[in-house]
Amino acid sequence: MSSANAIVLLSGGLDSATVLAGAVARGFACHALSFDYGQRHRAELAAARLVAAALGAREHRIVGIDLAQFGGSALTDATLAVPTQGGGPGIPLTYVPARNTVMLSLALAWAEVLGARDIFIGVNAVDYSGYPDCRPEYIKAFETMANLATKAAVEGARMHIHAPLIDLSKAQIIRSGLALGVDYSLTVSCYQADAAGRACGLCDACRLRRAGFADAGLADPTRYV
Amino acid sequence: MSSANAIVLLSGGLDSATVLAGAVARGFACHALSFDYGQRHRAELAAARLVAAALGAREHRIVGIDLAQFGGSALTDATLAVPTQGGGPGIPLTYVPARNTVMLSLALAWAEVLGARDIFIGVNAVDYSGYPDCRPEYIKAFETMANLATKAAVEGARMHIHAPLIDLSKAQIIRSGLALGVDYSLTVSCYQADAAGRACGLCDACRLRRAGFADAGLADPTRYV
Repeated sequence: MSSANAIVLLSGGLDSATVLAGAVARGFACHALSFDYGQRHRAELAAARLVAAALGAREHRIVGIDLAQFGGSALTDATLAVPTQGGGPGIPLTYVPARNTVMLSLALAWAEVLGARDIFIGVNAVDYSGYPDCRPEYIKAFETMANLATKAAVEGARMHIHAPLIDLSKAQIIRSGLALGVDYSLTVSCYQADAAGRACGLCDACRLRRAGFADAGLADPTRYV
Repeated sequence: MSSANAIVLLSGGLDSATVLAGAVARGFACHALSFDYGQRHRAELAAARLVAAALGAREHRIVGIDLAQFGGSALTDATLAVPTQGGGPGIPLTYVPARNTVMLSLALAWAEVLGARDIFIGVNAVDYSGYPDCRPEYIKAFETMANLATKAAVEGARMHIHAPLIDLSKAQIIRSGLALGVDYSLTVSCYQADAAGRACGLCDACRLRRAGFADAGLADPTRYV
């Protein structure tokens, strides 16, 4: 029996690598999808390619999409500095407007063409930096919309948006990924990694990741500058 | 008082031109958004530029997005022929997977950056060719999701997805647009217009449009090949 196709959103970071490993372990034929959305560095796209190959994705595509022309985020607007102090109130400057909605929408488009019923995304509502589109109620609402949006849904198929990390701490994510054989030295989480994929160690993403390895009592394989 | 910003999805066709005219008439500062999504011809993008200028949009942007790499539609896959017989059962081959979801998602991203609370889309559930993402329940579900997705929503703003044509016949749309001063000779609806924007007169979009002018008892200003 051939395995079912699934789309896995793959950023090249720790979380989405763990999600891909889990989806492969569940027997899905995984089609990994990354985006070149005008982010400051491309090291995470290089990491995504390595991770997709290492974990046995069936294929990996990178879709270009010009979110930077809208501006509004330190991740896509070169005139805004990436915050390195962390811990402030509210939603951080690194929030990219509607990013998960845009990415899930493109995953939905590809899913429909492939006849896939399953989309995986590595959002996390625990150590999540306060992004609104990482909350369970958001994922549920997207799934409801997706089941009205497509030809497949009209024809009776049911689309599932899987967010398997949503209730896990970073330490739990790391432990589960290691059990699945993820090599986290391949992944890049840093918002401002250098061209070689080395992390700054200072931004929110670096701090959450470093704390995750510490909380799990595990060596941090991250390559820092 | 400055007018409120709105995003208006503008394809260059008859419906979205009518929507833009209506949003301008309601006093919105309209930011028109078009997509270069790998469609077969670019005449509709040229038409969108003319329409945005003629109707007084505040600005007009065209976002490139490579839906064609997923294939699956006669509108983006050069190996599939555009149907010209019409009237068959089911969803036509010209359906582009998740297109409205992808476009509304990008409109949502721009809306958030601009602080806009209003997004206009020219979907129509009457003369609509059977696309699932043109139905009222789909638009409502997208709006619900949008109100969970964004920083603005978390901070208490309410996003509205306006689909003012959804219950109108093509003839009603044309009459309302003419009352608002829309010059339909600028618009291109045809799925396979030539480089000069001249319509084939045979595809579903041409047949619906031609019938709309006939039903309204009005002269059809469309330029046919």
